[in-house]
Amino acid sequence: MHVIVDFTVVPVGTGVSLSEYIAACENVLAKSGLTYELHANGTNVEGEWEEVFSAIRHCHETLHAMGVPRIHTDIKLGTRTDRLQTMADKVSSVKGKLG
Amino acid sequence: MHVIVDFTVVPVGTGVSLSEYIAACENVLAKSGLTYELHANGTNVEGEWEEVFSAIRHCHETLHAMGVPRIHTDIKLGTRTDRLQTMADKVSSVKGKLG
Amino acid sequence: MHVIVDFTVVPVGTGVSLSEYIAACENVLAKSGLTYELHANGTNVEGEWEEVFSAIRHCHETLHAMGVPRIHTDIKLGTRTDRLQTMADKVSSVKGKLG
Amino acid sequence: MHVIVDFTVVPVGTGVSLSEYIAACENVLAKSGLTYELHANGTNVEGEWEEVFSAIRHCHETLHAMGVPRIHTDIKLGTRTDRLQTMADKVSSVKGKLG
Repeated sequence: MHVIVDFTVVPVGTGVSLSEYIAACENVLAKSGLTYELHANGTNVEGEWEEVFSAIRHCHETLHAMGVPRIHTDIKLGTRTDRLQTMADKVSSVKGKLG
Repeated sequence: MHVIVDFTVVPVGTGVSLSEYIAACENVLAKSGLTYELHANGTNVEGEWEEVFSAIRHCHETLHAMGVPRIHTDIKLGTRTDRLQTMADKVSSVKGKLG
Repeated sequence: MHVIVDFTVVPVGTGVSLSEYIAACENVLAKSGLTYELHANGTNVEGEWEEVFSAIRHCHETLHAMGVPRIHTDIKLGTRTDRLQTMADKVSSVKGKLG
Repeated sequence: MHVIVDFTVVPVGTGVSLSEYIAACENVLAKSGLTYELHANGTNVEGEWEEVFSAIRHCHETLHAMGVPRIHTDIKLGTRTDRLQTMADKVSSVKGKLG
């Protein structure tokens, strides 16, 4: 099952700066081989369900190993059976309709 | 890795009433053996990472098999390494501090 | 416009225990006069759009005044024009369809 | 209070294609004067709290006026008191730490 995901990792109980941890997750994604893109409030990823959620789990494991005691993560995900759609398709579909 | 999750499944491209589909997901959870609780805007679940995400995937598969062409799902999840905490612990911890 | 909301406040850059802050938000809601209910991963609230978002803003202001330097909040919200629906309606509608 | 937001609008009870509605929200944002950026799973916006939430409300009103009977929206938001941060700052802070 192909899934398109947006996820945001929020380390809790560390300092106020989180970019070091977000960068560690980006490195996890880079090694995963999945298509992903960082944005101002999270990261978009697409791929097979198991691979995407395995990467998010690996991100949690990596941050806990860095000493983060608690992690809150938000995930928004979409699956559809009517047609295959990529993240790039979603953006271009909206941009094609802007007045 | 123990995880506490809140998830909300939003079937898209069907009718305006969604309770039939939410009920189908509750039945998936009932069969999973996981601890879960329906609330007004989603369902809370706790358990091992793989089992929880497997149940959410099974929920997607069930709804697609019912004819839902597109599903948007929100997941909020928490993991922590400092101590084991249950969903019941979280609620009672807050309630104990209410003025 | 009537809105049903689930929101989760995640204080960042404080300690690993967050219940003190969640309790402070519950007190904000208690004073707001809105219908609300704490659950294991957030709080459900319903009411007029302006009142609900004003309460969430007041919650942010309260936590910052308590010394929290950074807050991440998730909100899921629903509006509908086909009929008026309460949080209690949503839960009973699903429970009525459970097999 | 300055806020950085990611939001995703999910029209329910219409067809399976949603890009027409997302484009209508982008037009609401364009008229708002706020800084915003569409991505594959939502839109990032920053500005003063009242202006940002007023724009999201206006988006709901616009879609209901287009005939959408029910809307589910996700919002992730951040406020901080330690320093002023923009959406561009957040992305460049992470990118500067990538190995």
